[in-house]
Amino acid sequence: MIKLHGREVSGNTYKAKLLMHLLDIEYQFIPLDVSQQQQKSDAFLKLNPRGEFPVLEDDSLVIWDSQAILIYLARKYATQEKDRHWYPDNAAQMAHITQWLTVANDEIFHSLGKARSMLKFGHEGNLDLYQKRGKATLRWIEQHLSNKLWLSTNSPSIADIACYPYIALCEEGDISLKGYPAIHHWFKRIQELDGYISMPGLALRYPTK
Amino acid sequence: MIKLHGREVSGNTYKAKLLMHLLDIEYQFIPLDVSQQQQKSDAFLKLNPRGEFPVLEDDSLVIWDSQAILIYLARKYATQEKDRHWYPDNAAQMAHITQWLTVANDEIFHSLGKARSMLKFGHEGNLDLYQKRGKATLRWIEQHLSNKLWLSTNSPSIADIACYPYIALCEEGDISLKGYPAIHHWFKRIQELDGYISMPGLALRYPTK
Repeated sequence: MIKLHGREVSGNTYKAKLLMHLLDIEYQFIPLDVSQQQQKSDAFLKLNPRGEFPVLEDDSLVIWDSQAILIYLARKYATQEKDRHWYPDNAAQMAHITQWLTVANDEIFHSLGKARSMLKFGHEGNLDLYQKRGKATLRWIEQHLSNKLWLSTNSPSIADIACYPYIALCEEGDISLKGYPAIHHWFKRIQELDGYISMPGLALRYPTK
Repeated sequence: MIKLHGREVSGNTYKAKLLMHLLDIEYQFIPLDVSQQQQKSDAFLKLNPRGEFPVLEDDSLVIWDSQAILIYLARKYATQEKDRHWYPDNAAQMAHITQWLTVANDEIFHSLGKARSMLKFGHEGNLDLYQKRGKATLRWIEQHLSNKLWLSTNSPSIADIACYPYIALCEEGDISLKGYPAIHHWFKRIQELDGYISMPGLALRYPTK
């Protein structure tokens, strides 16, 4: 069975969980004890030399990095025609999805996600800068979604899964989500997907049905 | 014909160029005048709302983000059996390549690349931090390559193309490349690929044959 190492409060861990639920994949969740720096332990560094989570194990295969995990799950387990939209086998669509995987790591995580990690976990950084960049990112995404249902293609894709968590968690970084109707409609479409699950911090603000 | 917008001195632009030369793809290079902030002009923002380069145009298709461009080129133009190694159609290999695309953006660009951009282009940042992280990244990559020919798979892949430039340019950020024999052997393997081209800054240190 697939094993997922990570944290319940980690948006990056949640990306992997969410896609597994949407694809109805069974897995075992193995929580990391970061108070004991378990992600820097010798045993964990053997799985992921970066000392970060999530890490996915599928038999002897080990994959770190949430974007890589999304691509693996989609390509390995979303093989039925009805599921191919998560990462279609088409050069242009793969590229356009990849653009948004980069945005998820760059603009979104390194602004909205970093502001949250300072206020929620006490990490160091420049809160003003993260919040300023975060708001600019929200304005851009709002504009981008103003005439689209999904970020990258005409169907939900791993681009949406990758970008959703740290946007929907950003009020934990004291960045308001008021005034972004297109983003809220996109949240709703994601939350109404069959198999959707929530995570701590998201649930209170955007309750599922 | 494919158009590539970017800069000769940009490692991210070079990634796209290098793969096009290795795949023997004809393209037109369109240099951006950053002294005039051309990448923030209305015309350019229509191509890429992020205001960054490179941007690739293939007829009406527009792709920004160097990793997305690599995936597009490999999936669209590396379709002969002999070229499939650049981005193989296999879930595990795609995921393992993606891991290194993330490392290219994160550890490599945000340390080695940022130190270079401060010293070469006068960008702002924390040089000590970038250099410290950059050296840690070099030690990790050296260790990783100590028993491997290529970063991700058993053949050259877009992971190697994505990670190579900002590692091979890092002395422009005053980070020495002495003492990393595995990295130098990997440079040599890349530089001996059929169709290889260099870029300014790389050429003096690692001359091609």
